[in-house]
Amino acid sequence: MGTLFKNGTVVTASDMVQADVLVEGEKVVLIGQNLPTQGHEVINCEGKYLMPGGIDVHTHLDLPFGGTFSNDDFDVGHKAAAFGGTTMHIDFVNQPRGGSLHDGLVTWREKAKPSQIDYGFHMIISDLRDDVMDEIPSLLDEGITTVKLFMAYKGVFQIDDNTLYKAMQVAAKHGMIVMVHAENGDVEAQLRSQLLAEGKTDPIYHYSSRPPEIEGEATNRAVVLAGLTGCHLYVVHVTCIPAIDALRRGRQLGYPVMGETCVQYFHVTRDHHLGAPGFEGAKYVCSPPVRNEEHHQALWQAFKDDTLQAISTDHCDFWYEGGVGPWQQWEKDHKGGQWAEYEKQDPTYRRPGKELGKGNFAKIPNGMPGIEDRMMVMWELGVNSGKFSPSRFVELMSTNPAKIFGCYPQKGTIAPATDADIVVWDPNAKHTISASTHHMRCDYNVYEGMQVTGVPQQVYLRGKRIVDGNIWLGKNGEGKYVRRIPNAPVL
Amino acid sequence: MGTLFKNGTVVTASDMVQADVLVEGEKVVLIGQNLPTQGHEVINCEGKYLMPGGIDVHTHLDLPFGGTFSNDDFDVGHKAAAFGGTTMHIDFVNQPRGGSLHDGLVTWREKAKPSQIDYGFHMIISDLRDDVMDEIPSLLDEGITTVKLFMAYKGVFQIDDNTLYKAMQVAAKHGMIVMVHAENGDVEAQLRSQLLAEGKTDPIYHYSSRPPEIEGEATNRAVVLAGLTGCHLYVVHVTCIPAIDALRRGRQLGYPVMGETCVQYFHVTRDHHLGAPGFEGAKYVCSPPVRNEEHHQALWQAFKDDTLQAISTDHCDFWYEGGVGPWQQWEKDHKGGQWAEYEKQDPTYRRPGKELGKGNFAKIPNGMPGIEDRMMVMWELGVNSGKFSPSRFVELMSTNPAKIFGCYPQKGTIAPATDADIVVWDPNAKHTISASTHHMRCDYNVYEGMQVTGVPQQVYLRGKRIVDGNIWLGKNGEGKYVRRIPNAPVL
Amino acid sequence: MGTLFKNGTVVTASDMVQADVLVEGEKVVLIGQNLPTQGHEVINCEGKYLMPGGIDVHTHLDLPFGGTFSNDDFDVGHKAAAFGGTTMHIDFVNQPRGGSLHDGLVTWREKAKPSQIDYGFHMIISDLRDDVMDEIPSLLDEGITTVKLFMAYKGVFQIDDNTLYKAMQVAAKHGMIVMVHAENGDVEAQLRSQLLAEGKTDPIYHYSSRPPEIEGEATNRAVVLAGLTGCHLYVVHVTCIPAIDALRRGRQLGYPVMGETCVQYFHVTRDHHLGAPGFEGAKYVCSPPVRNEEHHQALWQAFKDDTLQAISTDHCDFWYEGGVGPWQQWEKDHKGGQWAEYEKQDPTYRRPGKELGKGNFAKIPNGMPGIEDRMMVMWELGVNSGKFSPSRFVELMSTNPAKIFGCYPQKGTIAPATDADIVVWDPNAKHTISASTHHMRCDYNVYEGMQVTGVPQQVYLRGKRIVDGNIWLGKNGEGKYVRRIPNAPVL
Amino acid sequence: MGTLFKNGTVVTASDMVQADVLVEGEKVVLIGQNLPTQGHEVINCEGKYLMPGGIDVHTHLDLPFGGTFSNDDFDVGHKAAAFGGTTMHIDFVNQPRGGSLHDGLVTWREKAKPSQIDYGFHMIISDLRDDVMDEIPSLLDEGITTVKLFMAYKGVFQIDDNTLYKAMQVAAKHGMIVMVHAENGDVEAQLRSQLLAEGKTDPIYHYSSRPPEIEGEATNRAVVLAGLTGCHLYVVHVTCIPAIDALRRGRQLGYPVMGETCVQYFHVTRDHHLGAPGFEGAKYVCSPPVRNEEHHQALWQAFKDDTLQAISTDHCDFWYEGGVGPWQQWEKDHKGGQWAEYEKQDPTYRRPGKELGKGNFAKIPNGMPGIEDRMMVMWELGVNSGKFSPSRFVELMSTNPAKIFGCYPQKGTIAPATDADIVVWDPNAKHTISASTHHMRCDYNVYEGMQVTGVPQQVYLRGKRIVDGNIWLGKNGEGKYVRRIPNAPVL
Repeated sequence: MGTLFKNGTVVTASDMVQADVLVEGEKVVLIGQNLPTQGHEVINCEGKYLMPGGIDVHTHLDLPFGGTFSNDDFDVGHKAAAFGGTTMHIDFVNQPRGGSLHDGLVTWREKAKPSQIDYGFHMIISDLRDDVMDEIPSLLDEGITTVKLFMAYKGVFQIDDNTLYKAMQVAAKHGMIVMVHAENGDVEAQLRSQLLAEGKTDPIYHYSSRPPEIEGEATNRAVVLAGLTGCHLYVVHVTCIPAIDALRRGRQLGYPVMGETCVQYFHVTRDHHLGAPGFEGAKYVCSPPVRNEEHHQALWQAFKDDTLQAISTDHCDFWYEGGVGPWQQWEKDHKGGQWAEYEKQDPTYRRPGKELGKGNFAKIPNGMPGIEDRMMVMWELGVNSGKFSPSRFVELMSTNPAKIFGCYPQKGTIAPATDADIVVWDPNAKHTISASTHHMRCDYNVYEGMQVTGVPQQVYLRGKRIVDGNIWLGKNGEGKYVRRIPNAPVL
Repeated sequence: MGTLFKNGTVVTASDMVQADVLVEGEKVVLIGQNLPTQGHEVINCEGKYLMPGGIDVHTHLDLPFGGTFSNDDFDVGHKAAAFGGTTMHIDFVNQPRGGSLHDGLVTWREKAKPSQIDYGFHMIISDLRDDVMDEIPSLLDEGITTVKLFMAYKGVFQIDDNTLYKAMQVAAKHGMIVMVHAENGDVEAQLRSQLLAEGKTDPIYHYSSRPPEIEGEATNRAVVLAGLTGCHLYVVHVTCIPAIDALRRGRQLGYPVMGETCVQYFHVTRDHHLGAPGFEGAKYVCSPPVRNEEHHQALWQAFKDDTLQAISTDHCDFWYEGGVGPWQQWEKDHKGGQWAEYEKQDPTYRRPGKELGKGNFAKIPNGMPGIEDRMMVMWELGVNSGKFSPSRFVELMSTNPAKIFGCYPQKGTIAPATDADIVVWDPNAKHTISASTHHMRCDYNVYEGMQVTGVPQQVYLRGKRIVDGNIWLGKNGEGKYVRRIPNAPVL
Repeated sequence: MGTLFKNGTVVTASDMVQADVLVEGEKVVLIGQNLPTQGHEVINCEGKYLMPGGIDVHTHLDLPFGGTFSNDDFDVGHKAAAFGGTTMHIDFVNQPRGGSLHDGLVTWREKAKPSQIDYGFHMIISDLRDDVMDEIPSLLDEGITTVKLFMAYKGVFQIDDNTLYKAMQVAAKHGMIVMVHAENGDVEAQLRSQLLAEGKTDPIYHYSSRPPEIEGEATNRAVVLAGLTGCHLYVVHVTCIPAIDALRRGRQLGYPVMGETCVQYFHVTRDHHLGAPGFEGAKYVCSPPVRNEEHHQALWQAFKDDTLQAISTDHCDFWYEGGVGPWQQWEKDHKGGQWAEYEKQDPTYRRPGKELGKGNFAKIPNGMPGIEDRMMVMWELGVNSGKFSPSRFVELMSTNPAKIFGCYPQKGTIAPATDADIVVWDPNAKHTISASTHHMRCDYNVYEGMQVTGVPQQVYLRGKRIVDGNIWLGKNGEGKYVRRIPNAPVL
Repeated sequence: MGTLFKNGTVVTASDMVQADVLVEGEKVVLIGQNLPTQGHEVINCEGKYLMPGGIDVHTHLDLPFGGTFSNDDFDVGHKAAAFGGTTMHIDFVNQPRGGSLHDGLVTWREKAKPSQIDYGFHMIISDLRDDVMDEIPSLLDEGITTVKLFMAYKGVFQIDDNTLYKAMQVAAKHGMIVMVHAENGDVEAQLRSQLLAEGKTDPIYHYSSRPPEIEGEATNRAVVLAGLTGCHLYVVHVTCIPAIDALRRGRQLGYPVMGETCVQYFHVTRDHHLGAPGFEGAKYVCSPPVRNEEHHQALWQAFKDDTLQAISTDHCDFWYEGGVGPWQQWEKDHKGGQWAEYEKQDPTYRRPGKELGKGNFAKIPNGMPGIEDRMMVMWELGVNSGKFSPSRFVELMSTNPAKIFGCYPQKGTIAPATDADIVVWDPNAKHTISASTHHMRCDYNVYEGMQVTGVPQQVYLRGKRIVDGNIWLGKNGEGKYVRRIPNAPVL
């Protein structure tokens, strides 16, 4: 007895065909026409698209950051993701300063225990000592193919080019991918300290400290080093023309370089959002910063000519004001999830949020919510506008992520023997995005008020329905760790 | 009772998964794992790829040209195509001078009667009178979405920009595609007459009369006009850097422009082939001419960034020497096919070929064979070299052609309810390409001696096996006309 | 006894040095420090720049156009030019339809009789018959090195590519330069007739009929043909990004191609000027049309990287309303000049102007005044903004024109033995440009109200002062024809 | 009584005119026609070009480097320069490690005492401590407008981006120019150590350790930082496509960035010179390394579109074998000059040279001779080939250097009141370049055997003849220090 998805349109990265899909256990087993219904739970998918579950390859759940933690964790964040049609994400593990990579992994495995959807790990290297350089290849044994290095955050994560080069050589040798946060941290540090010294402390100066030029510069540098070492490079959160141009040049030279952008970089602007009056802009502080319209256009173009390969979220949300009131009330009213022990034990405790950066933009916790919105917003902006076909949408949201990060074809498509992560997508249903209805533990939504046409109606994780409209059917611990495989293709 | 392809790897434009494929009648009906075998003919596909049949969107079978005809017709040419893994092609109908578009169609339908594989038609407009302009939309009733116009062949096919612009407006209005042969015919005419006047008559001067610059110029012009009119443009046989650059610029501006190249433009060179001693170069005369290595590299890059979308052949073969001996002998020894009545009735008749252009490169019949070689050569050059994944190969050889030209998903993929045009591809089998073994009615092969790894083992047309190794199982008349639908996507 | 310019700063295309300049007869004879004053008329130039007289290489004086004539002729237009610091221009001779090139020359020589400043001729070829092709080289005997061909004005001036190619071959052989008006006339004709058919008759639709794309296309075409033939190409009135890009590409390939823009294309906009309410936009109708700000920026960049070499005016002015009142009154009140016999004899006659195009933008006489404004406006926009040094200004306004068009070093610089065409430029003097004060026979000024700092104080033509502040000191017939020499350098 | 240069062609950066030039004292006083000869020494310049003396803005005379010194000093090097038509150079002062900038200046003033031609100083900052940052503006008091920073030489000169950024801010504030040696030193260090570890020690591996990519990367970085700070940037010794492209991009964005290349980068190749058998390649070791032909072509193009502004030498010569024999003999046979005391006192001492790097390419002293060859070689390669006009030659060799580096119009042109640094250039004289005849203290010449047409016949320094054919007429101490002025234009 299986689940039979009847009469939907199966959408893969290349195909859209009317077909029935039979799932048995955790896997897709049959795709065909007029499959017999007896013995199966039948889901009527007439007028619906069946798409592989979204894969968000860039998230920071439960992340310690500047004296607080990002709000969403492997419980609440997972639910929110699934409500948005995402059934897998790859979260960034932080190597603890002074510790090993595996030390970080231990911590993240603990965080991940209540998981409700599938997940993988990237490894952030914060302290690239020689012994850590040697440790890198052992990540493959843990199913991790990706290390992330920072060209920014001087004095914290930032590495020099010599280290980056050597890490790339190691990665190249082992079929691993180097991910970089590409901004010139030296210049950023200088701009930041000068701005603060001049009393320029509002959120908008976050932008001034991280202009497109320094993202473009660092991207170019990483691309050149990847070309020299033959290392597969994946530039995270590309936001702007100079960075896109740098990647494009690299790809035209045949370098094995790839990149992603995040949903917000298509929509949120410096002028209207980050530059909003008062402290409002703090909601939109992330790094690199959001850019204006001309850069949004360049991003669309970058997908037209395959300069970029994927769209993620960099999901990392903090309270804007919510953290000021007792969390317990929010909790009761809303959404559950894990909390730190001290939070549980002290009902008066207020978890800090964006307000940490009042009077100093550099202390605003970086990041914003998005894991739930990604699929709907990109469908609205991309598919409904005619820029992406549904197949292209699937490719960017699910298939390319799975291929690049070494979990294809287990994930990323609908085909026999693949994991039955299936989204029943209603292309005609309408929804208004709002913090008042979203499932993320965040008191604002970046796309507040956006009307979208096209929403996930039901979501299946390895054959099990976990979302049905507004109802949550999943269970803690049912999300599984996805081991990933090296030598993935460069797309 | 159906045909069950067991244990192969199904390759679509995005996916490669191990699965069984069940075909019943003309259609794929099931794709799944461990499909039960009883009641079916079982084809063991272990270690094989199952790919959708190739679609060659640019052929000229049985084409009248300069006092002769291209050799391969809808019988022999179809067999050759199928032996190479191609199960559909789109042939160019010629509007007769002074006649209507439908007059041309009548002729081509007659030519197509013995068809062995499926086919569609593009319409070459040779005489774009006002009444013909009005006739264009009616082609949709015939399942034709594409008209081809010539910017070259001054005094014959060449149209002026005013006419091109108006035709594009008509096409845009009706969701049709304008295809152009893009070379500046005014300049070509001038160069040609000057070269001949200087006694430069050898095949290599064919190149001199059609330098890359004039292809680039005309391509740029067509691209700009498409941008202005919003017409979907498909530039046929793009060969060189300036033309690629023109298309790339257009696409970066968001113009709805696409293009193809042909297999030979990756391999055949001006210096070694067209410039071979004596009259040998005549074998490689086609327009635009073959280019040297730097242009080959640019073509690979053009597929990397999606500047081009498909790879066809411009198949149009003529005897090099074979036409000099009696065709009947060749016929008996080889391959069959249709012949003109006068050829049948006069055993001493010699169909003219490339020798028509001895002493005058401009009279060399333009074209070369390739319909049989396309899939194997591109697998060798593209997949085995690591430039294309098997999925990308399928996309360029079959899926994109079907999508662009409005016959997807009937054609172009393997999925439930699609035509069961399936190639069982053995990626490990080796073959040496040669005129002595090919099935095209031509006494030379452009890739003579090329060793390829990866060959079609069996070929199915709508569920019927037509090729089994070296054995032909098809039948005249079993090839069907494929009606195509307008408003196809721009890829 | 000579004229001694004392203590000025001599500005050439490369140098700015404090020096005295001694002129004797028509020539500069000495440049030095502390030249003895005795025996000379001494001009105190302290705080002034001494610059070579401006050369406007693109004018249409007394041009027959669509049932009227451009207002300024070789009398009034010359005075206006000189009041603006221009001491030489090159006017376009029109070959009469059906006549020879020399027929045109006869007419223009007649027009030029009252000349007040020096002048040369370009030859517009309107009817490129075979005998005219043969006639081209004989222009060198007349001191003409330049022929202008039109890619626009279908049915009137427009030539096909074959003719353009052949003309370029002839020019290349004889060291002549082909000038092109680069817009795709086929497309323009089509757009125009469709716009008019749709009742879109206002001046702004002039723009719609000539979008940047068709200028870019034609420019690219001319550039490619110049590259193929080795012909020196000079693209007149380049206005927009696509045209600039086409020239830039050509120059990067080493093609001998050059171009100019005109003053108005830096300042006048589609939106604010051409699109002004009512019929006001007619003032700004010229071809190619004025463009918006983004194209202005691209022009500045084109001078930064030497894509363009000169700045002219395309001066060709028509009454906006003035022609409606009796010309005699205007004449009396203002500025003199030649008039047609019938105008002189019929005091009620009203010479038609821009109003010819009321209700049909295509009938608006194309062109605007500028010959007087060119130097002041470009000084203001270029030098005062820091984009051009004074030397660069001289290079673009005088030296490059003289070099390209074969009259250097007679013209275009201040050096011993050169013609003493000298402008005493006061970089601190202020002036407000206005039709109420300008000397052109035109009832509007394109730069009306523009405040400029930097004006010609005195102007010398071959050693003779012709302008002193607001006073005219020249005489009819003192302007001389300048013979030009072939094989000029490509800049 | 002065010197009267009679009947030559005066060449400036924009003009070529036949004129007489009168020099009195150290200055040009008159330029005119038919100047009276009485009372003057008359130099017959018929058929000759009079050009401003060459200015070589990038030299390292008497430079301590890796345990030795560059051979040419302010005596011998100056003579050699003058024999080649160069009358001024700008040498790099090294800040001593731990010392101040002015400490370096003291040393270099001492070195410069025997000067025979004019000279200026750039300041190399090797140790950019905070106090040194503060010291920078005081260089203006010494007539120094330029500081040079290194992005390469990790652990020695290399600075981080933060420091570079701050230095650029200081320079921008004071109208100074930052010069950078642009190669990514982190990557170079890594490549170098890996190559040596692999036993790759031959000169050719010098290239492998410094591929074009790392020069392009660093250039891009410097350009972006200059754009952000508004600092005038001058990239020294640009050699390759990626670096040129980076500069070009910056200039297209309006950044105040400039660059030079050196003569050798047009001529010397990796394959034929650096890769010569045995240790021969050591002669051609410099950083960045010499590149192959495709990069040479890109350099020519970079001058076509003004991406680069000047051509220098980076003159820094070391013995190839000469150092092995006693220097005194060479001295006696050849050319004189200063020697270190220990060299003078120990006749058996052998000054080390290129052989220091036998067995380890990284120890080969970097640099090659060229100060004498620059003008002749660039005339041959640039002017005689038609790529540069004589005016353009003057611009790149003399005028632009003077303008950029703040000593124009004292230097860099021939005009009244300028220094009478005049080269009488015979454009028809032929010469074969060779170490056996050159005046540099070096036992090889990079252009050995090159036949040039166009040589300096006589050379004047501030009115005094110092070279007459092969005869040296100068005197130690007659070369003067040239103070330079800030806020020079960006060309």
